[in-house]
Amino acid sequence: MTLSSQPYKGTRDYYPEEKRLQNYIFNVWRRVSERFGYEEYGAPTLEPLEVYAAKSGQELANEQTYTFTDRGGRIVAIRPEMTPTISRMIAARRQEMAYPARLYSVANFMRYERPQRGREREFWQLNTDVFGIDTVRADSEIIVMAEAIMKEFGAKDKDFVIRVNNRLLVNFVMVKYLGLDETQAHLMVKLFDRKDKIAAAEFKDQATEILGDKATDGLSKLDSLMSAKNVSDLPIDIKTSTPGVEIAELFSLLGLAGVNSVKFDMTLMRGLDYYTGTVFEVFDTDPDNNRSVLGGGRYDGLVGMFGAEPISAVGMAQGGTTIENFLEAHSLLPSLASSTDIYIVVLGDVQKAADKLAKHLRSEGVNVELDNTERKLDRQIKTAVKKNIPYILFVGEDEVRDEIYTLKDTTSTQEQKVGFSRIVSLIRDRRRVAADDDIPDLD
Amino acid sequence: MTLSSQPYKGTRDYYPEEKRLQNYIFNVWRRVSERFGYEEYGAPTLEPLEVYAAKSGQELANEQTYTFTDRGGRIVAIRPEMTPTISRMIAARRQEMAYPARLYSVANFMRYERPQRGREREFWQLNTDVFGIDTVRADSEIIVMAEAIMKEFGAKDKDFVIRVNNRLLVNFVMVKYLGLDETQAHLMVKLFDRKDKIAAAEFKDQATEILGDKATDGLSKLDSLMSAKNVSDLPIDIKTSTPGVEIAELFSLLGLAGVNSVKFDMTLMRGLDYYTGTVFEVFDTDPDNNRSVLGGGRYDGLVGMFGAEPISAVGMAQGGTTIENFLEAHSLLPSLASSTDIYIVVLGDVQKAADKLAKHLRSEGVNVELDNTERKLDRQIKTAVKKNIPYILFVGEDEVRDEIYTLKDTTSTQEQKVGFSRIVSLIRDRRRVAADDDIPDLD
Repeated sequence: MTLSSQPYKGTRDYYPEEKRLQNYIFNVWRRVSERFGYEEYGAPTLEPLEVYAAKSGQELANEQTYTFTDRGGRIVAIRPEMTPTISRMIAARRQEMAYPARLYSVANFMRYERPQRGREREFWQLNTDVFGIDTVRADSEIIVMAEAIMKEFGAKDKDFVIRVNNRLLVNFVMVKYLGLDETQAHLMVKLFDRKDKIAAAEFKDQATEILGDKATDGLSKLDSLMSAKNVSDLPIDIKTSTPGVEIAELFSLLGLAGVNSVKFDMTLMRGLDYYTGTVFEVFDTDPDNNRSVLGGGRYDGLVGMFGAEPISAVGMAQGGTTIENFLEAHSLLPSLASSTDIYIVVLGDVQKAADKLAKHLRSEGVNVELDNTERKLDRQIKTAVKKNIPYILFVGEDEVRDEIYTLKDTTSTQEQKVGFSRIVSLIRDRRRVAADDDIPDLD
Repeated sequence: MTLSSQPYKGTRDYYPEEKRLQNYIFNVWRRVSERFGYEEYGAPTLEPLEVYAAKSGQELANEQTYTFTDRGGRIVAIRPEMTPTISRMIAARRQEMAYPARLYSVANFMRYERPQRGREREFWQLNTDVFGIDTVRADSEIIVMAEAIMKEFGAKDKDFVIRVNNRLLVNFVMVKYLGLDETQAHLMVKLFDRKDKIAAAEFKDQATEILGDKATDGLSKLDSLMSAKNVSDLPIDIKTSTPGVEIAELFSLLGLAGVNSVKFDMTLMRGLDYYTGTVFEVFDTDPDNNRSVLGGGRYDGLVGMFGAEPISAVGMAQGGTTIENFLEAHSLLPSLASSTDIYIVVLGDVQKAADKLAKHLRSEGVNVELDNTERKLDRQIKTAVKKNIPYILFVGEDEVRDEIYTLKDTTSTQEQKVGFSRIVSLIRDRRRVAADDDIPDLD
């Protein structure tokens, strides 16, 4: 029987060159998260399905999860998102944790969706969450960190916009400002959520229908609400409401923190049912990639679902393929070499001496791939070049005798004769330069 | 409804302190693998079930996999091991890959087993594999790397033993040396595999039964085979067979490479059906933790199952919890601090100045957690200490005015007055020391 060599539909194989890019993305995520004092955690791939049924929204829980019954009769799901899991973990150690708890993870998730560009059935995400801060300072910190991640990837202010809204503000607008009843409010929220996906005329038609006898006044109110790019543009009733004051304070903190690409957007909803305050999304401004590349918000109620005393929570997530597409669209993809420093090409009957040299170099921390195939020179070289390894070290009888080797830079035609210590210091210098690129210089 | 806060049976939540240890293990794996010129890859969580049904052995494929039918009617499994997946990946790019291909991954797997110490339903593994080397040099390289991993974790020669066998040698012994027919040989192999789990008398009884009329001669032959700790102890017919010569060459290469803790073991089988030559396992010598902590072997036939031209392959795997238990048993668990360098404790109405200072420190690569809760001093300090953060920086009105801050080492009672540049250089020095611990000094 011949088996297919293709990966399962909607998933990806990461060969070394794709994995290098993924690792670059993971490293940026980790670096920025840790710079803000967030600590890494890990979690199981499976959760009971009911964890998502409770609060993640119907589509995600019912239609998009990979769900099955295990051999013990438990109905489980491959996690489609992290927020319920980290809330469960906080609930399990509600008393023991140190607060504020600042946590991040880099993990994989699965959703049963039609595969398309930037949307895979298995995907990787950064999740960062802070627990235990009631004030809008937490919301600000998460958004500041979201911006720092975009900047760390090399994005400029003009490349993205951070849209911010508040669920409580939306409730206030629906009920107190537009005077809608519960059913109307629910329908209007759903309509807001679809706004970017439908034509302006269709939006107006549907809004008119929902508003019913309030349409005349309601439509003009809606117009002005949706065109407000700053909280200060909102009508006074809304600005002075509790959530209005809160969102104004959030914008003020973001201004102080130097976050420029931020704007208010009354129609931003985010699909998940668990948000209880601020919601935000980072949008790509490139018209060809006009989509959200990061999102998050406040979800104060979720920990309480797991039988623990509720605790305030703000978090965000970014997808790996999503940010990869963004980097591609904005020509921000880095050029990445192999993790291997040196490929040793062996000429003639010196395999044992080459073994020794490789061992010695490795003991000094140098990453060495040793050719032990006894193939012809050109085929050995071809392997090193194909793998994008920065240096080739040639080892033959003369080299073994003299302990002087030819080191070739595969990215140029440059060659040099070097001894053992010089090889080690060359590689260490190269690493130090790479590491210093991550740590900006003192000014 | 109240949901359980416990993780799914047989899986673990990794809170920051557990994740630190897991990251330490992952980093050792990555460091040693890369030192040998292996490059990282990634792969999907799901594979078609048939991939395991083919060669992984009946128990693993039928009883231990997490299997289900997806919404499109495909029968899939959460991967219980990596070897079939990496073989599929090689088959998919059979022509384009550079050979020898040296690859590693750090990934999670699931098996439906009764949870017990060191055996979880979800576990993490290092997998390293080399493709395209027909000679025993590949087998040697993988075993040398296995030993290097144990040493990098701090294990001494006396802490472990590497048992080595060869499937072809076993076949030769069964058929040519003991003269067994196919059924007898199959039963004897299964008996060898169970040897460590049953009493000596039971082993003898069952062996006698399998041998039938060959029992008299066969039992004494078995005795001497099983007591051979070196290939040189084997009878001449076996030593001069093709697999006998090959395993002798392997031991010679391992000797040259300085691998001491290695011994021949005719009864070592390893459960998986795909091995075609060398098999090996690293065993803990601690009588309280007497189990395999790493295993691997040659599996030349697997890539060919996916419709590609076959290619020789040798690989190994180590489990995260397995090595964690080993480190614990041998008192080799490291003490690990938070990834956060500094916790800023804020005193009085200086939150904005503290924000600025945190931002400035972060821009220099320092990992800073900023307290923005306006809590009392002692509660802020308690949070930092509980999180195992190495330094606390106190920021109050005087500090903001003078730009001189009190920096407290949380592991001692030491305190010092420092300016901005001094803080940055202190943290950088600390990092450099930590990094140098990973790279041995030039002698």
